[in-house]
Amino acid sequence: MRIGILGGGQLARMMALAGYPLGLDFTVLCPAEDACAAPLADHICARFDDQSALHELAGKTDLITYEFENVPAESVDLLNANNAVYPPTRALMLGRDRLLEKNLFNELGIRTAPFAAVDSLADLEQAVKTVGRPAILKSRTEGYDGKGQQLIREDTVLADAWQANGGAAAILEGFVPFSREVSIIAVRSRSGEMAFYPLSENIHLDGILRLSRGLDHDPMQSQAEGHARRLLAHLDYVGVLAIEFFEHQGELLVNEYAPRVHNSGHWTIEGAETSQFENHLRAIIGLPLGPTNLYGRALMINLIGEIPAAQDVLVLPGAHLHLYGKRPRPGRKVGHITLHGENEERFALQLDHVRKLPGVSGI
Amino acid sequence: MRIGILGGGQLARMMALAGYPLGLDFTVLCPAEDACAAPLADHICARFDDQSALHELAGKTDLITYEFENVPAESVDLLNANNAVYPPTRALMLGRDRLLEKNLFNELGIRTAPFAAVDSLADLEQAVKTVGRPAILKSRTEGYDGKGQQLIREDTVLADAWQANGGAAAILEGFVPFSREVSIIAVRSRSGEMAFYPLSENIHLDGILRLSRGLDHDPMQSQAEGHARRLLAHLDYVGVLAIEFFEHQGELLVNEYAPRVHNSGHWTIEGAETSQFENHLRAIIGLPLGPTNLYGRALMINLIGEIPAAQDVLVLPGAHLHLYGKRPRPGRKVGHITLHGENEERFALQLDHVRKLPGVSGI
Repeated sequence: MRIGILGGGQLARMMALAGYPLGLDFTVLCPAEDACAAPLADHICARFDDQSALHELAGKTDLITYEFENVPAESVDLLNANNAVYPPTRALMLGRDRLLEKNLFNELGIRTAPFAAVDSLADLEQAVKTVGRPAILKSRTEGYDGKGQQLIREDTVLADAWQANGGAAAILEGFVPFSREVSIIAVRSRSGEMAFYPLSENIHLDGILRLSRGLDHDPMQSQAEGHARRLLAHLDYVGVLAIEFFEHQGELLVNEYAPRVHNSGHWTIEGAETSQFENHLRAIIGLPLGPTNLYGRALMINLIGEIPAAQDVLVLPGAHLHLYGKRPRPGRKVGHITLHGENEERFALQLDHVRKLPGVSGI
Repeated sequence: MRIGILGGGQLARMMALAGYPLGLDFTVLCPAEDACAAPLADHICARFDDQSALHELAGKTDLITYEFENVPAESVDLLNANNAVYPPTRALMLGRDRLLEKNLFNELGIRTAPFAAVDSLADLEQAVKTVGRPAILKSRTEGYDGKGQQLIREDTVLADAWQANGGAAAILEGFVPFSREVSIIAVRSRSGEMAFYPLSENIHLDGILRLSRGLDHDPMQSQAEGHARRLLAHLDYVGVLAIEFFEHQGELLVNEYAPRVHNSGHWTIEGAETSQFENHLRAIIGLPLGPTNLYGRALMINLIGEIPAAQDVLVLPGAHLHLYGKRPRPGRKVGHITLHGENEERFALQLDHVRKLPGVSGI
């Protein structure tokens, strides 16, 4: 069976690495000539709106999935007309519009931070009154890793913020005082079987995920699973889906979901019996899901902008290096390190060592 | 860094899967058009004695290794003249000649079954007197998985056996009454660092490996490590090396070594912190070796000639499927299953289930 993947970045690369043992082959559609997944997949180098490339992808593959969800709606429609495509389009379309996404969460009884729709400067002025300051003006669509967002401080001139936003449909989102950020990697197969990984505790800096740790028997696990279960069922979802939460006074407030494998689940490669990448593939091709339990302690650290010397990472027992085959440049995710082990004290020492490496500094 | 691999079969495929996360790229030289590793590597489709293909491989890669060691000596010499090649040629040359190999073992104080060199029918007649019957006449070079061997029974006419052997230089090897077959996967890096995996207990049928299980704290571990340590040091070895033993009354008698990653080490993908494939790559590029400890219980079963339905395997929690992308035909290794878990009772039940699957029957 040949799987088509929209996008050829590190998520596609790790999906292919997980999929070959299942006997799968891969074709990726990606506009980047040096796509990370290209060395280990058939690569159609074209834009996501290139009709002939989309037809080629559909013709070559048995089933299509995404590693990158901001694909034009027309392209998704074209693929759906010809192929099985998972996750379902509705999950993509809702997930890429912050307003629809937050409304859906509230409908499902999943709390969000206070927010208001903003389509004009007048809306923004009104929204600031209900949501309060500080707040963040976020475009409804596009933007991730902190891009396309305007911080509204006490002294921010709203007209300036609205102009900086470029006048795109947006939401204003209030700040929640939170004790920590967690996410859940959930998976639902074509047969409706669901599985949930142990929560990840995440550290972001400047809007970019830097560190995720698998949490064994966290008190928030069942609340997160309940939310994920309702969302997966409502969307008739197939594949892996990640939900990011803020914890505030024993309650999880949802931030957003991603309809794909997720950076905060990379620790599952070594830390779980079945990785998120393998379970995503099992789900979309209709195989039984694999166990999601945590094996020992596992923690993932992103490498941003720089790649440390491999020996400085691998000298640590239980450290694993995952490079994406990307040329380093400032702010670019070029790989990650997973620490995996049993002994908490040694684990803490290893983390101290890793923190000093190029690409890791600041956490 | 680009690694060249001589051979493009399942061992090369699994090596590439382990190597991409380390930031490596791969070029395989393999005469088979449908080489298993081809979908995930650059593939030079040519014979192992094709001078221009060897030059192309040498020119494209930073370092060369083997997944298949029966490469013509002239080809190995050509590569050595232009590139770093690991494991060292001497280990290949000794390992492919059963007489030299057994003499080396005895020199290093590692016991073998009784054997004698046989270069003629007269030699064979003499050898049968010293080694006894039953015995096996094996060509000194070539042959694996039981190919190229003549069983000498009580009633075998020696002239017939000698003729069946084709008159090639051979050895006669006596049978050892053994209680079990075990192997050790050992690894030595360019810096001289060594590591040893827990012993594998192996079941062969008709000369083909069918099942390997990782053994936690086996009483024979230290004896096997001692033998492996002496052999690695003597050969100034770099990479993974496997040694197969028979256990007889608390002593390990060596059968043979393989200067490469080995089928009896496939359980290390899930069962060890670092797989044999990753440690082979770490060793040859000069990185620190990763921990070799067993994580839980792990057992590998080869799929021979047939591929079971994936759902029949993956319905078992902790079962992992490894398909090689090969078309099934009788006697062909087309994949393997790893069972991985903690609970011995559940493990035994799972093994019972797997035993009934196509491709597994007989064990």
